[in-house]
Amino acid sequence: MAERIRLEKKIVTENDRLAAALAERFDEAGLLVVNLMSSPGAGKTSLLEQTARRLADDLRMAAVGGDLATDRDARRIIDAGMPCRQINTGRGCHLNGRQVAEAIEVYDLADLDILFIENVGNLVCPASFDLGEHRRVVVSSTPEGDDKPVKYPVAFRSADCVVLNKMDLVEATGFSPASFSGFVRDLGLDVPLLELSCKTGQGLGAWLDWLRTQREAVRCRAAPSPE
Amino acid sequence: MAERIRLEKKIVTENDRLAAALAERFDEAGLLVVNLMSSPGAGKTSLLEQTARRLADDLRMAAVGGDLATDRDARRIIDAGMPCRQINTGRGCHLNGRQVAEAIEVYDLADLDILFIENVGNLVCPASFDLGEHRRVVVSSTPEGDDKPVKYPVAFRSADCVVLNKMDLVEATGFSPASFSGFVRDLGLDVPLLELSCKTGQGLGAWLDWLRTQREAVRCRAAPSPE
Repeated sequence: MAERIRLEKKIVTENDRLAAALAERFDEAGLLVVNLMSSPGAGKTSLLEQTARRLADDLRMAAVGGDLATDRDARRIIDAGMPCRQINTGRGCHLNGRQVAEAIEVYDLADLDILFIENVGNLVCPASFDLGEHRRVVVSSTPEGDDKPVKYPVAFRSADCVVLNKMDLVEATGFSPASFSGFVRDLGLDVPLLELSCKTGQGLGAWLDWLRTQREAVRCRAAPSPE
Repeated sequence: MAERIRLEKKIVTENDRLAAALAERFDEAGLLVVNLMSSPGAGKTSLLEQTARRLADDLRMAAVGGDLATDRDARRIIDAGMPCRQINTGRGCHLNGRQVAEAIEVYDLADLDILFIENVGNLVCPASFDLGEHRRVVVSSTPEGDDKPVKYPVAFRSADCVVLNKMDLVEATGFSPASFSGFVRDLGLDVPLLELSCKTGQGLGAWLDWLRTQREAVRCRAAPSPE
């Protein structure tokens, strides 16, 4: 038991070192890096497809995506107009700093405004692994039920923004948006909660605005201060 | 890196030892033990609620359930008429043999026909940890999308039965049952695929029949052979 705890520490430390190096590279390049986490099928890829279609004229974007197997997500994102590198993790339940560092080698970060990291579909493990990102977004979806924030508090507590997707299914699923936001508040979270539907387009404007604002905040921080 | 691999082996070995001890206890007691795995919100708890309501007159059942936090699932299952012990895992992404062994201490296994283990909502990690169960059931749901089998092959390949829940949302989600079953076949799986809806009750009969058949198979194997 003691050995297990020791090793976990060691792994985290190694990933933290890699994440810190990534964070430094991201800051130097002056781009915004967003780490997307969710349950399988909550809509991370759909959100990136919609983002690509609606923001590609304004901002230069690219993505890396983690999945146990297949390149289905990357192909969808590329088809929507955003470059994407698929990382296959095999049995791996989350992305780590090494995988991200390798995957972004194909990109010139200085030529990008936003890099999206679509994590492995898993509402537990990815939350414990820093990837050097500026912002974490947890994507939840109405069919999963309104109690997910309190049942998966580690991921939600780490979020800078909570996206609630599939609002078009609120009635069909009996989902309570009020309960969901109540559960988010119960966690003590004071972050934007964006209700939207990647299917109908409802609410996507607020998501794009949030992205632009975060992009601007990171860009201004990265700009050299005037003498 | 080498150390990480060594330790993973060690953890698996310890869990395998505990799982083998559990399997032995389960076989001696002659009950059926079913390990339920799924993404968050796919409907494991709903399936147990429906099972409790429809099978409680015929079979003696109990459950243990894993969740990072809260006892919400256990309360729902108990309210439906099935005893349930909640295991809170904190940051733990799957149940292990030690947690199950501790949780079942309150039950007299010889007095049970079926014990359900509702794993942590996670379609990745639980698949790699044996809990001494007789059968593994992967619960998928239509809103997650029809490609989940090929994107999460480790869990699906380990299943003795695949339950596809939320069939009432097929049209609203644009889910293709044919694609889903095609992807299941692509994995080389030859196990029952049970399409149902815990909400409407559609297809639950086949699930209850499957449970009865598995229960009978385990009971007959456990019975002393005639001299």
